[in-house]
Amino acid sequence: MFELNENFQKLPGNYLFATIARKIKEYTAEHPDHHLIRLGIGDVTIPLAPAVIEAMHTAVDEMSRAESFRGYGPDYGYDFLVNAIIENDYKARGVDIEFDEVFVSDGCKSDSGNIGDIFAESNLVAVCDPVYPVYVDSNVMAGRAGEYDPATGLWSNFIYLPCLKENGFIPQVPTIVPGEKTPDMIYLCFPNNPSGAAIGYKELAAWVDYARTVDAVILFDAAYEAFISDDLPHSIFEIPGAKTCAIELRSFSKTAGFTGVRCGYTVISKELIRNGIRVRDLWARRQATKFNGVNYITQRAAAAIYTPEGKTQIRATIGRYMENAKILREGLTKLGYEVFGGENAPYIWLKTRAGMSSWEFFDYLLHQAEVVGTPGSGFGPCGEGYFRLTAFGTKEASLEALERIAKLG
Amino acid sequence: MFELNENFQKLPGNYLFATIARKIKEYTAEHPDHHLIRLGIGDVTIPLAPAVIEAMHTAVDEMSRAESFRGYGPDYGYDFLVNAIIENDYKARGVDIEFDEVFVSDGCKSDSGNIGDIFAESNLVAVCDPVYPVYVDSNVMAGRAGEYDPATGLWSNFIYLPCLKENGFIPQVPTIVPGEKTPDMIYLCFPNNPSGAAIGYKELAAWVDYARTVDAVILFDAAYEAFISDDLPHSIFEIPGAKTCAIELRSFSKTAGFTGVRCGYTVISKELIRNGIRVRDLWARRQATKFNGVNYITQRAAAAIYTPEGKTQIRATIGRYMENAKILREGLTKLGYEVFGGENAPYIWLKTRAGMSSWEFFDYLLHQAEVVGTPGSGFGPCGEGYFRLTAFGTKEASLEALERIAKLG
Repeated sequence: MFELNENFQKLPGNYLFATIARKIKEYTAEHPDHHLIRLGIGDVTIPLAPAVIEAMHTAVDEMSRAESFRGYGPDYGYDFLVNAIIENDYKARGVDIEFDEVFVSDGCKSDSGNIGDIFAESNLVAVCDPVYPVYVDSNVMAGRAGEYDPATGLWSNFIYLPCLKENGFIPQVPTIVPGEKTPDMIYLCFPNNPSGAAIGYKELAAWVDYARTVDAVILFDAAYEAFISDDLPHSIFEIPGAKTCAIELRSFSKTAGFTGVRCGYTVISKELIRNGIRVRDLWARRQATKFNGVNYITQRAAAAIYTPEGKTQIRATIGRYMENAKILREGLTKLGYEVFGGENAPYIWLKTRAGMSSWEFFDYLLHQAEVVGTPGSGFGPCGEGYFRLTAFGTKEASLEALERIAKLG
Repeated sequence: MFELNENFQKLPGNYLFATIARKIKEYTAEHPDHHLIRLGIGDVTIPLAPAVIEAMHTAVDEMSRAESFRGYGPDYGYDFLVNAIIENDYKARGVDIEFDEVFVSDGCKSDSGNIGDIFAESNLVAVCDPVYPVYVDSNVMAGRAGEYDPATGLWSNFIYLPCLKENGFIPQVPTIVPGEKTPDMIYLCFPNNPSGAAIGYKELAAWVDYARTVDAVILFDAAYEAFISDDLPHSIFEIPGAKTCAIELRSFSKTAGFTGVRCGYTVISKELIRNGIRVRDLWARRQATKFNGVNYITQRAAAAIYTPEGKTQIRATIGRYMENAKILREGLTKLGYEVFGGENAPYIWLKTRAGMSSWEFFDYLLHQAEVVGTPGSGFGPCGEGYFRLTAFGTKEASLEALERIAKLG
């Protein structure tokens, strides 16, 4: 008799965004003619860059002719894309990454969900609190979470790294206490989703040092690096020693509006070794077995981001989103809100008003201002009392959202 | 200290197609001006259908304008594609599939590799011999395989279902012996890769009956159903009772030349239940957590296959491949080879000449005829002495391959 993976039964029923979607549905059913402003899910709104569109049309045409038609591509990405990544995302920042250390994929969510395949089930996982839910849920499915406590919202086997106002939403490196367990897999995401916090060289170097000391692997999600404007690391590999202790996950979703196109990549240095085995080789085997490469047209689209025109266009789009972030950040601050993020990330993280809980504030904004955001507590207990707004709406929507919130007094 | 998934270390080093690639590379280095005919890897050569190309251009243009731009899509596929699948692939064959039983993905390889996530590690796996390597390798990674015996090429914990000339390459349903273990997860692929064998209603019904009797789940890979010309089941769900014991995997790769486009889907009926839990719900959760939907343009491309023009064009392409299959099948038979498959599948499965082993025959054809195929033994011990050729080349290549083989005498 076949049995199911029993870890799935441990997952609490209501997924954050599903609950939000239900509440929106209920509200719009009651108020069918009202216009909601949606600054909840981090989805982009500005269309693809002209350079990307042109590259896609050209690639589609190639697929229409026998002499230029492409069937199965290389498992880990076409040369033209991998080389562009190495040149622009790494070499330009002083980091040497080799060709066979880059793995192109259909996105960061797939990679961050699947990367656990190559690690032992027994590894102890550390996550930030609040945190992007995929790191948690995928490890629950893999049996690394232990038991869920509905009272606290915490899993018994995870090590939580609180990200609070007091530490600037940057998790502190744990103190090593002899006899106490240390984490084996540490998930870090900077610039951060949901808090919008960005990490500095020194703070990130402290994490690299810690991981090397306790022999942990850092799973570094840099999906939002394109939004950095200050002098901060875009890649964990800018930190000396990181190649021996980190895996980096990258995405074109927010960089180039690819949420509906699906492309990202993972970098694992050949210097990341455990018991004489290159971690890179396991991921290569995993991907060659359980994945079949990325759409050719999509890879051409991604490569177009690295052309001179593509770069300029992408920069302009990011600039528009960051203008929204500035509008929201400055506007909400003026209204007396305590606001974080939005300077090197497209997320605004604010304290709710008058001691409301995150969900109370969600309902308040939905019903009183018809603005949709994301309750901070949905990302973890330390997110309670906070609220996330994204800069991915239009400028008009961002301005109107602010106006509506202002009217609440 | 983090540890790796130790199951990966059990995988034998040389992957079938990697070895073939190496041998080809060596040969072409020695004979740079010779022209090899490649009928090895099952990759398509005919460009995408005009209806598909048109749909892609239109979708690319939609992505260039704010009013029609698409960000994150539905996790399990857009309505327009899911409905087309239900209508054309199921309803047209008398099978009722509901909207939330279809999961669009980036291809059958991903789905067949990832589906194991939702099952217990303790399940006993049955695979055909010979077999598509992904079923085996993904279960090795998940810890269901036991130990590999290099002498036999078999894994200690798998139940092997021999597919031989004697049973028409259709695995026989095991006899149930009290006290003997029965399989929990049964991988079946029809029309078959590599043997090209197709299964009839009666034989497939016997497997459904067996699975229901022993409470096993059948993972039915129907990636090649479009190549069926005889009166045979295209879907396992054409068999009464299959909804309670089977999962079906489908692909557009060979149907519509999508090997470089990446799209497929998986169907799990809500009637497939274990201990009160719908298996469908687990896959839904797995995909929502570790996958982020398929490229919008790709989904438009896939939907175009179901338009009247698309259907006609796809039929014509499949007809051309099956003409190649006929050329190879009839030609090789005339040359005295014992040939199987190629009637309801794009694969030709032949006995090697003069008692050669599969790899001896591979080297013989490579060096003497400059034709590349796939050694049957690469798919499992029962494939020894067999050889696979694909019908996915051009007609000219198929004819010339035949001519070159004829010259060998």
